[in-house]
Amino acid sequence: MIEVCLLGTGGMMPLPKRWLTSMMLRYNGSSILVDCGEGTQIALKEKGWSPKPIDVICFTHFHADHISGLPGMLLNMGNAERTEPLLIVGPRGVGRVVESLRVIARDIPFEIKYKELTGNEEAFEVCGLKVEAYKVCHNITCYGYTFSLDRAGKFDTEKAKAAGIEVKYWNRLQKGETIEEDGKVFTPDMVLGESRKGLKLTYCTDTRPVNAIVKHARGSDLFICEGMYGEPDKLAKAKEHKHMTFYEAAELAKEAEVKELWLTHYSPSLPNPKAYAKAVKEIFPNTVISKDGRTVDLLFEE
Amino acid sequence: MIEVCLLGTGGMMPLPKRWLTSMMLRYNGSSILVDCGEGTQIALKEKGWSPKPIDVICFTHFHADHISGLPGMLLNMGNAERTEPLLIVGPRGVGRVVESLRVIARDIPFEIKYKELTGNEEAFEVCGLKVEAYKVCHNITCYGYTFSLDRAGKFDTEKAKAAGIEVKYWNRLQKGETIEEDGKVFTPDMVLGESRKGLKLTYCTDTRPVNAIVKHARGSDLFICEGMYGEPDKLAKAKEHKHMTFYEAAELAKEAEVKELWLTHYSPSLPNPKAYAKAVKEIFPNTVISKDGRTVDLLFEE
Repeated sequence: MIEVCLLGTGGMMPLPKRWLTSMMLRYNGSSILVDCGEGTQIALKEKGWSPKPIDVICFTHFHADHISGLPGMLLNMGNAERTEPLLIVGPRGVGRVVESLRVIARDIPFEIKYKELTGNEEAFEVCGLKVEAYKVCHNITCYGYTFSLDRAGKFDTEKAKAAGIEVKYWNRLQKGETIEEDGKVFTPDMVLGESRKGLKLTYCTDTRPVNAIVKHARGSDLFICEGMYGEPDKLAKAKEHKHMTFYEAAELAKEAEVKELWLTHYSPSLPNPKAYAKAVKEIFPNTVISKDGRTVDLLFEE
Repeated sequence: MIEVCLLGTGGMMPLPKRWLTSMMLRYNGSSILVDCGEGTQIALKEKGWSPKPIDVICFTHFHADHISGLPGMLLNMGNAERTEPLLIVGPRGVGRVVESLRVIARDIPFEIKYKELTGNEEAFEVCGLKVEAYKVCHNITCYGYTFSLDRAGKFDTEKAKAAGIEVKYWNRLQKGETIEEDGKVFTPDMVLGESRKGLKLTYCTDTRPVNAIVKHARGSDLFICEGMYGEPDKLAKAKEHKHMTFYEAAELAKEAEVKELWLTHYSPSLPNPKAYAKAVKEIFPNTVISKDGRTVDLLFEE
């Protein structure tokens, strides 16, 4: 299971009743935070989730509304007595930017490691999840993130027996271990059925709609995507500022055949995003006009 | 008249229902902000006051809870189309600290000027108000601020006539101008009665109680002072972390003979500061256990 919380839904500036866009996911005791604007630590406290298990923070880009809350969050994690290292992932220069912000957050009781994204797309693993980071199209370098959790096939007793594998190895093989004994090599595929559908979560904000998003979001169980403007006549503004309308996000969701779309990153000029729900659902019915704190447990099928 | 709003009352970290301690005062079209922690821009929006006329930001010190909201506030002021220069006042290194934080707030449409405080006490003027900044006692360099507005005496017709000053000069002299004509010098004191009581406002946070506070706060109309802990048994903790209990703040207020004390900068461990109101009022009756957004208009007497 992956727990996902969209901590905030605002773009540009935090508002009295709308935190800035950021997402936390929790899996297997680890937490991963994507973006951390001013107030994200408060949104997290409202949610009731601890900052201590945050093992990774991924930044889409370095506009203040996505990173200004970092010094406070680091201190908050320190106050929660975190001592394990923290990995911070972000576009080129992430170490320089974070260290510059740390002028007011020097004393923290854990190490910070950096992973700088440089390519158009990069794949890596954190906390047992596969991550794909890919360049999107904003007015500064910006990345989208897709997190996936693979799911192995069921244990197949007949297959294991047919391969002549002793029962004492079954459990280790089922858990994914490769075993070498007496010059023989046993691999998990010898005891497992076809791999099953896993979980996939995509987070994209501050971008025009581009093919990379469709490519990586394809088949996502949840697609969290920016929708800066609900008003159809703001398309030109969306293009100018390298953002999207609700309808552009919905078209991406449709093309990528995701299960569900959560809109976020609303313009401060948009007090009631829900007013455009009907129109956007005509493009992609399973669209949610998210509110701060929206949470879901992504579960394996069956 | 000076309008004063205590935008937040929290110390250490912002909480869902408590913004970090900061104060804004408005006088004669200018706004002065003292401290700007994470979320201060939201507190200001809740108050309904504009960020555009902020001509001066004074920092007591560089702990994150007093300055982490600066990048967002600067961008906010830029979005409000401010173009006039902004003066930022703070302890030694203020320019370096602010420029480091500005790694995420480079593009703002106004100039930032710095005034670095270096002495134990400094006096200067901003926006028509006298300011005294003085070192207090925290675990890093920290300053208290006292703002005062002098009030000239009433115009005294008899005195002006007795001094043989022509009526055509009266208005200019009343407004404070010194006039030289035909080898004669006329000064405002020649037409004005004794100067009257002005207004005085003192803001002190993140410090142990020290004499400098009493000295500068003396006779203040309003004394906004930290009270990190309400529980009497937290005195040792207050000493250790260089903060004050409510009772120490009240003793300062009493000794400095201020008119009113507003407590602020409550510890996150203190959910209900009002529980200690009775005990603290026994020391200084005119104490207010402030809540976020508390506002007053300081008015001249009569």
